[in-house]
Amino acid sequence: MAQKPSIPKGTRDFSPVEMMRRNYIFDTIKSVFRLYGFAPLETPSMENLSTLLGKYGEEGDKLLFKILNSGDYAANLSDEEVRQASKISEKGLRYDLTVPFARYVVQHQNEITFPFKRYQVQPVWRADRPQKGRYREFYQCDVDVIGTKSLLCEVELVEIVERVFKALGIRVALKMNNRKILYGIAEVIGHADKMMDITVAIDKLDKIGLDNVKAELRERGLEEAAIEKLQPILELQGTNAEKIATLRTVLAGSETGLLGVDEMETVFNHVEALEIDLLVELDLSLARGLNYYTGAIFEVKALDYQIGSISGGGRYDNLTGIFGLQNVSGVGISFGADRIYDVMLGCGLFPEELNSSTRAIFLNLGDDAEKVSLKLLRELRAEGLAAEIYPEPAKMKKQMEYANRRQIPFVVIIGTEELQMEMATIKNMVSGEQQKVAFSRLAEMLK
Amino acid sequence: MAQKPSIPKGTRDFSPVEMMRRNYIFDTIKSVFRLYGFAPLETPSMENLSTLLGKYGEEGDKLLFKILNSGDYAANLSDEEVRQASKISEKGLRYDLTVPFARYVVQHQNEITFPFKRYQVQPVWRADRPQKGRYREFYQCDVDVIGTKSLLCEVELVEIVERVFKALGIRVALKMNNRKILYGIAEVIGHADKMMDITVAIDKLDKIGLDNVKAELRERGLEEAAIEKLQPILELQGTNAEKIATLRTVLAGSETGLLGVDEMETVFNHVEALEIDLLVELDLSLARGLNYYTGAIFEVKALDYQIGSISGGGRYDNLTGIFGLQNVSGVGISFGADRIYDVMLGCGLFPEELNSSTRAIFLNLGDDAEKVSLKLLRELRAEGLAAEIYPEPAKMKKQMEYANRRQIPFVVIIGTEELQMEMATIKNMVSGEQQKVAFSRLAEMLK
Repeated sequence: MAQKPSIPKGTRDFSPVEMMRRNYIFDTIKSVFRLYGFAPLETPSMENLSTLLGKYGEEGDKLLFKILNSGDYAANLSDEEVRQASKISEKGLRYDLTVPFARYVVQHQNEITFPFKRYQVQPVWRADRPQKGRYREFYQCDVDVIGTKSLLCEVELVEIVERVFKALGIRVALKMNNRKILYGIAEVIGHADKMMDITVAIDKLDKIGLDNVKAELRERGLEEAAIEKLQPILELQGTNAEKIATLRTVLAGSETGLLGVDEMETVFNHVEALEIDLLVELDLSLARGLNYYTGAIFEVKALDYQIGSISGGGRYDNLTGIFGLQNVSGVGISFGADRIYDVMLGCGLFPEELNSSTRAIFLNLGDDAEKVSLKLLRELRAEGLAAEIYPEPAKMKKQMEYANRRQIPFVVIIGTEELQMEMATIKNMVSGEQQKVAFSRLAEMLK
Repeated sequence: MAQKPSIPKGTRDFSPVEMMRRNYIFDTIKSVFRLYGFAPLETPSMENLSTLLGKYGEEGDKLLFKILNSGDYAANLSDEEVRQASKISEKGLRYDLTVPFARYVVQHQNEITFPFKRYQVQPVWRADRPQKGRYREFYQCDVDVIGTKSLLCEVELVEIVERVFKALGIRVALKMNNRKILYGIAEVIGHADKMMDITVAIDKLDKIGLDNVKAELRERGLEEAAIEKLQPILELQGTNAEKIATLRTVLAGSETGLLGVDEMETVFNHVEALEIDLLVELDLSLARGLNYYTGAIFEVKALDYQIGSISGGGRYDNLTGIFGLQNVSGVGISFGADRIYDVMLGCGLFPEELNSSTRAIFLNLGDDAEKVSLKLLRELRAEGLAAEIYPEPAKMKKQMEYANRRQIPFVVIIGTEELQMEMATIKNMVSGEQQKVAFSRLAEMLK
């Protein structure tokens, strides 16, 4: 077999260094989730196609990875049947974590204690055309609470955003809006029926600019007068409190709109009272594409790195309705691990220590030293110190090179002299400094 | 949609309590791997079918989950082509972590620093008939070092087994054997060519007993005299040292066999010198089915719970040969997370604390208390204490029930009296005891 093996397009291997960085992100996010009382959940990679199909729009259906039925799936079928994918495939890989979560909640509704606070960190698969930054397999980190309408949950998510990005060292802004306000705006400009059209159009404001959004609104059937009314709302300036005050006037004619304004005000008041150290901004141009949102919506942007949003989410009042369980409100947010990774790499935010989980490596200088080294290693590991020994008595240079390439910070050398003195030479691989240390003090020195 | 949703046969949802227990196992195993200098690796869930096919035998090929090519895969194909799975599927879900690891090593051989110490904890998929204890999606926890023949690696794996199961509280025995010894035995009974037949037969000794193994050996073409010679070897009694001594005599005519004896002796000597606190037993009936092993083989059995082996592995001299990279020796072991879970559950070994990651929940007794609670919660979380508040001012009974069902150990109550006194009542949910604590001392008391 001469051909070098490869992996499918759009998928990735993660090397040890990449994994340690990724785990740092995942571990940080998960530990914050746990601080707020969220508990882990995992669902299978495969779902029945009946669970997945029709949940992500026509485009989404095409992006599902389908799994061939096992066994002689094609042997007893007519040609026509083989051509119908449903006869040869009944399962698909999950496309996101939201639909499986909704499916789980409905399936296990009698065992679950509501409000149900869960987090889920697992890969999802999309048969998208692979391109820079877009993969066919990638992780999502979702946190949701379902079974309560309390706005404390929104406040909690704001705190989670604050704490996650502070822990990672990324400066961010949290943009918020509310679908009820968007509905209110549609209502007061006389187009309550076109709420989704308006939402889809203004969602593009960031990307295509105001003029193109106006053009799209025209295409979607809004007359010039309505577009005129919309513009000043989208361009609303000032503090959150000032925007809230203006909206109260503008939306006076829309009950739903005013409800949205009240919700946002409550959240902002809590954010202020708790002195949450995060830039939280009411952004009326924020719409988010997913149409199951019904209340608050969130999006997080990195301040020091050009990239799309690195987290997003919102409240949905009827997510489980698609599986027959009506009127269970929830709210959640998803952290984009791949983009967060890119921001951290771009801004140099990964801690140096992540390059090696091993603290020290013992050189292998022959049988006698090896025996002593193995015993010392046992003691170090008992103290929780990650350490290893080069497995063969190779040339010193080769062993040092190995330590260097693995980026292990300390090398422990036990030669003939050291053996006699019951001391080890420790070499700091960054500074190059060496010092002799008694065997008994090795753990203490390496910590 | 009236029908309750479900998941594919042989797959599982993991509830929060199950997840916290599973994570406890995974975290313990991974932290031991890291103590020994192993670094994490992840490979994609999908591999090209050319990578997977032919690596697991004819039976294994049938158990691969194949993924339909995306797009209009069937539209432009003839009926004949559609029937050839290769035209409609080019990717499959990984079947184990070993073949993807071998593929990774070959593909990235120029970037890898050998000896390469990696661990990998990811799910694998097999289209097996689902039954009790056998799933179509399950996790493997593999640890391997590749690129050295040093027996220190075997010793390290023995230590890892010792430390993992000690940390989990499971009493185990490690059974070891060596493929070179098995070859030597085949050689001295005059059937070097039948080494695999003999291996496969004696691998079943545990399950079907000596008489049936003999019958199978007869079927596989061994004459009575050879079987007679084999029996005392399989039934060898005594300490490891005694068995080693006997084998030296028995295998005097086999160079390979003696090499295997030397290898085992070296490992056992290290185990003794290091005072490894683990029952390590040379078991000549241990064969392990996978035919890529060429040296030491391992298997771990739980002493207090009836179940198959809970870990297993061995040395392979040419794993990467299937992808064109010859003569790279490695050794590894895989921990069976599902079985370990069953043992821990059966023996009651999961720590009580795992039932809830939340330490305390604040009851929600109305607006004023809520505001104070949110501030206190912020302080607790800043101290690393996982805590939450019931999101709505529901009936006290309902909130207490919630705390109970979530198995949260402490409930914090801030009523009108407590508000005035700036104190909180803490209720221990296990003992039922209550005490009043100043707000400022809350973190300290809950720790």
